[in-house]
Amino acid sequence: MEERIYLSMLLSTYGSLLTEKQVNVMRLYYDDDLSMPEIAELNNTTRQAIHDLIKRCHKMLLNYENKLKLVEKYKRNEDIKKDIKDKLYILKDKIQDKDNVQLIDEIEKDINSFSI
Amino acid sequence: MEERIYLSMLLSTYGSLLTEKQVNVMRLYYDDDLSMPEIAELNNTTRQAIHDLIKRCHKMLLNYENKLKLVEKYKRNEDIKKDIKDKLYILKDKIQDKDNVQLIDEIEKDINSFSI
Repeated sequence: MEERIYLSMLLSTYGSLLTEKQVNVMRLYYDDDLSMPEIAELNNTTRQAIHDLIKRCHKMLLNYENKLKLVEKYKRNEDIKKDIKDKLYILKDKIQDKDNVQLIDEIEKDINSFSI
Repeated sequence: MEERIYLSMLLSTYGSLLTEKQVNVMRLYYDDDLSMPEIAELNNTTRQAIHDLIKRCHKMLLNYENKLKLVEKYKRNEDIKKDIKDKLYILKDKIQDKDNVQLIDEIEKDINSFSI
């Protein structure tokens, strides 16, 4: 996975553990693709301060993932989810009974409501 | 949910964010039900030091849950999992075709392999 996308996922997952200012700067850098001088100007600070903040937060996010592995789990669960959905489609295709098809639709909805 | 069980769940979920010593003391207190003086003796320290450590870690665990809500999600996902399994049983009961039953068994296995 591309580094920038991965960092964006880490930020979505662990952003609540950072301060509002840290998240704000990280989003400008990783999601909005702004340069460090641009972010420094927006925050009325130096390029060096932004560089240090990004570096520190980067390290914190990798550390959280290293310990909790939520992004790794998320990716694994996404694969399982896709697998289940594929099987439900096959099953639905092979079943005629209307009530059973409805039950499968409900299972699919349940699968989508998992927060992973 | 009983306070002690809840704390035990928080500890299993966020223990990797604490130090080894902190987890050790918290497990003795919440899982093994030892008293503070007993834990103090085992750790060759004072009851007050253990009291402070437990209080601080308790606060940290609640803070992590307040921000990441992993235990809350876990409980919600467990309910969804149970719901899906109930529906799969109903479906299996109503289906005759052997291949379809096998497909349902596979879906059930997938559901169990979710790490939530």
